[in-house]
Amino acid sequence: MLELDAETIYRHLAQRARETFVGETLKLVGVHTGGVWLAERLKRDLKIADPVGILDVSFYRDDFDQSGLKPAVRPSQIAFDVAGSHILLVDDVLNTGRTVRAAMNEIFDYGRPARVDLAVLIDRGGRELPIAASIVGATIELPADVAVVLVRDDDAQLHLTMEKRGD
Amino acid sequence: MLELDAETIYRHLAQRARETFVGETLKLVGVHTGGVWLAERLKRDLKIADPVGILDVSFYRDDFDQSGLKPAVRPSQIAFDVAGSHILLVDDVLNTGRTVRAAMNEIFDYGRPARVDLAVLIDRGGRELPIAASIVGATIELPADVAVVLVRDDDAQLHLTMEKRGD
Repeated sequence: MLELDAETIYRHLAQRARETFVGETLKLVGVHTGGVWLAERLKRDLKIADPVGILDVSFYRDDFDQSGLKPAVRPSQIAFDVAGSHILLVDDVLNTGRTVRAAMNEIFDYGRPARVDLAVLIDRGGRELPIAASIVGATIELPADVAVVLVRDDDAQLHLTMEKRGD
Repeated sequence: MLELDAETIYRHLAQRARETFVGETLKLVGVHTGGVWLAERLKRDLKIADPVGILDVSFYRDDFDQSGLKPAVRPSQIAFDVAGSHILLVDDVLNTGRTVRAAMNEIFDYGRPARVDLAVLIDRGGRELPIAASIVGATIELPADVAVVLVRDDDAQLHLTMEKRGD
């Protein structure tokens, strides 16, 4: 059984962010929910001033109408000025790239950023769009029917679990 | 002086396409103008049945209003069914990634593809969005104020030229 230690992988990701963006003024945007947890940790560990922007891309994903998601209203919120900024978009798992495309479009609805980098805890491959992360915590290969899910316990510790996808 | 032989680089790109997408039914979309020339060559060399789709992303680029482009009407045209298809998006030079983001959005306006791969003749770095090509003819580094331009002569041979970017 593959053990993925989320806290160890996160520390690697944070270190990569420190090295890659040294001297840069980053603004963080997390994809609901796991990406927001990670962005909040990066805000603290990289001492980033601006509040974390939150994106909920459920409505923007191109398969929204196929996914059977409840249209619960969890509006996105970015409290800083996106125009001209260097954004680090944060998500837990990178797979097809469709969430990232949706997230980019949502960011551009707020303004034209100077640059958007992508940080993901796990890159599990399976890309369906020409999307790539700038920094990655860990790259793994998994059967297509296995989902990796980031969870956060009552002590704010992160854990990765695997579950069978679908029905 | 760096010599970039466009025909040699193209042959490398075509070989990469053959190896990477063996057994796949690809549909080609070229970005006006250089990407369309390259896509037409790939159509012939990879024996792809469907006509090449043509994208003109001038109107979609996020800096359209800053670029001073004339709003000449060169409408995009994709004559095959995008929904469910495996698209190879072709462009001559990959730089910031903004053209690719615009091209993806335009493709999705036609339907939801199963997959979009990106083929570029030249990856010159300088990414401002988390975009990556699936296959690349050549990767080069250039000063930011130097543009690489693909041209096609009267004998349909491809050439790469470098020019100072406009002020």
